[in-house]
Amino acid sequence: MVDFTSDNVTGAAPEILRALADASEGTAPPYGADSWTERLTRRVSDLFETPVEVYPVVTGTAANALALGQLCPPFGAVFCHEDSHINTDECGAPEMFTAGAKLVGIPGPGGKLHPDALDAAIRRTGFRKVHRVRPAVVSLTQATECGTLYAPDEIAAIAEVCRRYDLRLHMDGARFAKAAVALGCAPADITWRVGVDVLSLGATKNGAWAAEAVVFLRPGLSEDVEERRKRAGHLVSKGRFVAAQLVAYLDDDLWRRNASHANAMARRLGDGLSTLSGVLLPDPVEANMAFPVLPDAVREGLRAAGYAFYDWPSDTPGTVRLVTHFATRRADVDALIATARGLLAASA
Amino acid sequence: MVDFTSDNVTGAAPEILRALADASEGTAPPYGADSWTERLTRRVSDLFETPVEVYPVVTGTAANALALGQLCPPFGAVFCHEDSHINTDECGAPEMFTAGAKLVGIPGPGGKLHPDALDAAIRRTGFRKVHRVRPAVVSLTQATECGTLYAPDEIAAIAEVCRRYDLRLHMDGARFAKAAVALGCAPADITWRVGVDVLSLGATKNGAWAAEAVVFLRPGLSEDVEERRKRAGHLVSKGRFVAAQLVAYLDDDLWRRNASHANAMARRLGDGLSTLSGVLLPDPVEANMAFPVLPDAVREGLRAAGYAFYDWPSDTPGTVRLVTHFATRRADVDALIATARGLLAASA
Amino acid sequence: MVDFTSDNVTGAAPEILRALADASEGTAPPYGADSWTERLTRRVSDLFETPVEVYPVVTGTAANALALGQLCPPFGAVFCHEDSHINTDECGAPEMFTAGAKLVGIPGPGGKLHPDALDAAIRRTGFRKVHRVRPAVVSLTQATECGTLYAPDEIAAIAEVCRRYDLRLHMDGARFAKAAVALGCAPADITWRVGVDVLSLGATKNGAWAAEAVVFLRPGLSEDVEERRKRAGHLVSKGRFVAAQLVAYLDDDLWRRNASHANAMARRLGDGLSTLSGVLLPDPVEANMAFPVLPDAVREGLRAAGYAFYDWPSDTPGTVRLVTHFATRRADVDALIATARGLLAASA
Amino acid sequence: MVDFTSDNVTGAAPEILRALADASEGTAPPYGADSWTERLTRRVSDLFETPVEVYPVVTGTAANALALGQLCPPFGAVFCHEDSHINTDECGAPEMFTAGAKLVGIPGPGGKLHPDALDAAIRRTGFRKVHRVRPAVVSLTQATECGTLYAPDEIAAIAEVCRRYDLRLHMDGARFAKAAVALGCAPADITWRVGVDVLSLGATKNGAWAAEAVVFLRPGLSEDVEERRKRAGHLVSKGRFVAAQLVAYLDDDLWRRNASHANAMARRLGDGLSTLSGVLLPDPVEANMAFPVLPDAVREGLRAAGYAFYDWPSDTPGTVRLVTHFATRRADVDALIATARGLLAASA
Repeated sequence: MVDFTSDNVTGAAPEILRALADASEGTAPPYGADSWTERLTRRVSDLFETPVEVYPVVTGTAANALALGQLCPPFGAVFCHEDSHINTDECGAPEMFTAGAKLVGIPGPGGKLHPDALDAAIRRTGFRKVHRVRPAVVSLTQATECGTLYAPDEIAAIAEVCRRYDLRLHMDGARFAKAAVALGCAPADITWRVGVDVLSLGATKNGAWAAEAVVFLRPGLSEDVEERRKRAGHLVSKGRFVAAQLVAYLDDDLWRRNASHANAMARRLGDGLSTLSGVLLPDPVEANMAFPVLPDAVREGLRAAGYAFYDWPSDTPGTVRLVTHFATRRADVDALIATARGLLAASA
Repeated sequence: MVDFTSDNVTGAAPEILRALADASEGTAPPYGADSWTERLTRRVSDLFETPVEVYPVVTGTAANALALGQLCPPFGAVFCHEDSHINTDECGAPEMFTAGAKLVGIPGPGGKLHPDALDAAIRRTGFRKVHRVRPAVVSLTQATECGTLYAPDEIAAIAEVCRRYDLRLHMDGARFAKAAVALGCAPADITWRVGVDVLSLGATKNGAWAAEAVVFLRPGLSEDVEERRKRAGHLVSKGRFVAAQLVAYLDDDLWRRNASHANAMARRLGDGLSTLSGVLLPDPVEANMAFPVLPDAVREGLRAAGYAFYDWPSDTPGTVRLVTHFATRRADVDALIATARGLLAASA
Repeated sequence: MVDFTSDNVTGAAPEILRALADASEGTAPPYGADSWTERLTRRVSDLFETPVEVYPVVTGTAANALALGQLCPPFGAVFCHEDSHINTDECGAPEMFTAGAKLVGIPGPGGKLHPDALDAAIRRTGFRKVHRVRPAVVSLTQATECGTLYAPDEIAAIAEVCRRYDLRLHMDGARFAKAAVALGCAPADITWRVGVDVLSLGATKNGAWAAEAVVFLRPGLSEDVEERRKRAGHLVSKGRFVAAQLVAYLDDDLWRRNASHANAMARRLGDGLSTLSGVLLPDPVEANMAFPVLPDAVREGLRAAGYAFYDWPSDTPGTVRLVTHFATRRADVDALIATARGLLAASA
Repeated sequence: MVDFTSDNVTGAAPEILRALADASEGTAPPYGADSWTERLTRRVSDLFETPVEVYPVVTGTAANALALGQLCPPFGAVFCHEDSHINTDECGAPEMFTAGAKLVGIPGPGGKLHPDALDAAIRRTGFRKVHRVRPAVVSLTQATECGTLYAPDEIAAIAEVCRRYDLRLHMDGARFAKAAVALGCAPADITWRVGVDVLSLGATKNGAWAAEAVVFLRPGLSEDVEERRKRAGHLVSKGRFVAAQLVAYLDDDLWRRNASHANAMARRLGDGLSTLSGVLLPDPVEANMAFPVLPDAVREGLRAAGYAFYDWPSDTPGTVRLVTHFATRRADVDALIATARGLLAASA
């Protein structure tokens, strides 16, 4: 089977495996007091060109929920896209970590929050004191769940709304590397320089086994986060294990190389499929996902030929999601396109 | 530095590292739908001689809190030793995962629950309906936080109290392998055969990077645990990563070999130190911890010589805790004893 | 000032005051073991023509949140209208009592849930197991926050969707009396006979000081509700105080008389205003609220003349909400209409 | 039956009933924006000789849990007597309102916290950062659940421990009036002047229907308490109803007169019983409870004669608890003593 269902179907990158083997030597203080964790903070600060605080965890859900639990009180509201991962795919983790805050889902094309829609949602929520939950956080996903990207000025416009109402801005960066690479932006230019306060920085979907980090991009926001992480069971005892993955991920630009490859493979898929008559690609490929519209015969034929992918809920029937990753092989991409071409020819 | 502070100061065992490298090949379905996870359930069922359900997570705190969250309602009570890890070292994780249950700490010598003290505590709590939290779970630790062991009949006596009041019995097995090996018991004989319902089975302290499992030892208790795990951010996306560690841990008796070594090293430490005049060993070494009482000069001298260990709160001043693990070297043990002997001679 | 802002601006009805004075005599067992509470259960069972369980509390928010906390697990979803009180005006109480469930707000005209929109929302939520919160409860409000009513067959259609997905159906009946009277229906005919499982039965807005009840309309749903009520601080020690209000409310049809008066006054307001040229009444008055569209001069003039009421968010600017209650005086209604007529004439 | 089981078996005092009837006239803004609530703040500030903030609720459990929820984070610890109401009789309400904080119960004679035991418990809890819950609040009960009192210097000594570790000091004053009257102290002298930060001020057990208040005795501690109260379903819509009870309670020294009577009746009971040979009164009566030790025949005989009271868990078998209240009749007290005397004579 050739698996295009997600970027979490791979194992770990060889560089990560090597780093883990190296890190396994000897003894080290547990619970994040090790030298890998210390080095990690320096590496992330360097990458983001500002002193940051870094709290490693093992899942994206944990990173997001921990960040939101730290930023939003139980009687608060988190504003996000209605289709965002935190709202639809974490089984209420943000609600658990915040002790019951409300996620306000906002519609918008391409999985993206629009500043006007956000502003309207905040005003609607904040209408009457005490009876209403208190607006506290805005969360956006970069790259989005629809494979789209926020340009720096789009983030800045969201941040401007946050400032207006004194809200914190969180970014779910499960696919942050792919976004940064695709936009050609320095990490700082799509985060704190345009108003992002806290980032969930993902590595798992881009080569790590299980390594994400909550990154506080400005001081004064993280007061209780260590207790919150421990209390959620997310303080790993052999802390070097998570930190070593993340250090290796940042060393030698592994994050960039892996993301570039994934993005290139998705573009290749999109380019190849869109040249086929009978296949539509309504939206350009922005990061590592392509959303072609395939005739039934092609969809079924590809699956029969061993390609795995998800149907995608969309107004256009026949839409599927194809996800690439750091280990996607060019030959597999080309073979999928060729197979589709053959199926189209056969059904013509 | 030679580190005797804990059994989580090591990296991973070579067998675990190899298993991770092997498991990293190719693609696999995420979120526990992989073949390693399937194999794990079979392996644990074989080892425990009964069909079990296995839910892997990455920390012992997560395993304990998830088990308790599943077994205890928000208005319930969990009875445990007052010095148990769940009561003192998890920053309220059980309270978070249960949405606010109460842990009732019970005193007792050697870190162990005594059935009479347990019975009395349950009766005191359950005195008045509605106003009182509802007794729901008893949790005991094997091996205990004091390095002691529950014999099978001691567990059975606790289970008898649970039956009396219709409570579930949970076992925190962060050091379960060491206990089973030291007691010379089959895992089944110190768990479900003597009344344990759910086990937190630890591997991290005995050779894994980050791998524990909640093991349901009888059917009908785990209804919502998958949602609870996801919601806590503990459903690892590359599920084979945790499962592969655990499979390797159970394969070829790695768990038993590692635990045997750790126990042997602690006994060697205890035996060696207790022959020194001026050193007391009030309690026998039962698993992988020794608690000698050292004169000040020896304590300080050992630390100056590069040995790390914790002072232990005790009625006997000078008590320290020495913990061994799968990678503790015999030479380091012998050198510590020799150094202590030298310090005693010098201070005589 | 003549206050049309809400039906909670009054004190208590004289019958309620008398009942409290009578109930104050002598001693009685606390915490709901008194004879008033016992009588209440009989009275509600009689009124609803089925054996019910009744749990009195002092606020509508408590009644709703307690019911939802009982019916929905922490990882569950409650489906409701996006403008429902539970979603917008309880500061996250349902989230607190459920320990973090998600409220899924559904749009719909007139503050009412439509079965198709409900079905679509449930299907969207339930798409992927484990990652998604589990659909558990549907909640509708009768009369709605917009003053509209659900006819029995409309409720039955909602209940049919609930059955399809095995969800419980909750009704927020803060204004239940007004709905029953306006529809001319027996309470049973707009609740359990058409599929409602649990009712928040309000009395405060219709003559009590502070008395609501969670009414379980069929057996097997209330297992832990007593502990949940106590734990939320809502088990009143002098239980007869809440029960006596509710008994008086049901005795001699007080609930019906008070609701009929409130509804009649709102209809009179609507009828009177809609005859004025320059005033629109887009929707008929169904219960005790009228939503006329007033020219600015009339709105301001009425306020200057001492009439209080809220502007209402609406697509039609100038919409206001006028609420009547059991103690609204006919003379005040007529005077408001006359004043509006005068203001219109003056501004013509 | 003559009921000595508790001080919540009565109805409301006539002054409270009259106040409610008066307050019921006309309309008033809901949710605490009424003039009674405003007056209440002034009255409490006058009584406590300092500007306070007052948040009325309807139960003591709600007052305590709301105060603790405001003062203690989810990962925090509340130190209290092991037999305190918050620890044993609120079904986990403090755990619910704090989203999972830990209550650390401390033993001590007479239901009282001793500063040394408190200091030791705090040090034990706070031993290791991150793994341990964070000490946040100390709560003491005045008068205690055992009917004993803290003298001002005893409270000051507790407060000194709080200052040492920067903890907040909460007082459960469900029976505050009885304590103040018995001690002959101004309210300020047993609260903020000796270091109490927040008081749960009870009126229900001393003449109200259902009226308690969280009183913040110094500024800067109450930031989110309004949202927390609303979210818990404890913001009563007809706010004047709770406020009017509390205003009447404070007007004309009703609180003092009612408490004095209750205390006098308990003393009379204690004095009368302790003169009987065969009856022991191990502890003096300090407030409105007496704890005599009665021979079996007397205990049973009194119950057969229609007197109700609870057996009390104690090292001395035969101990019972007799509670008096504002409406306890002297004749009933004297009759109980006479009946006991007769039973003793008959059994001699």
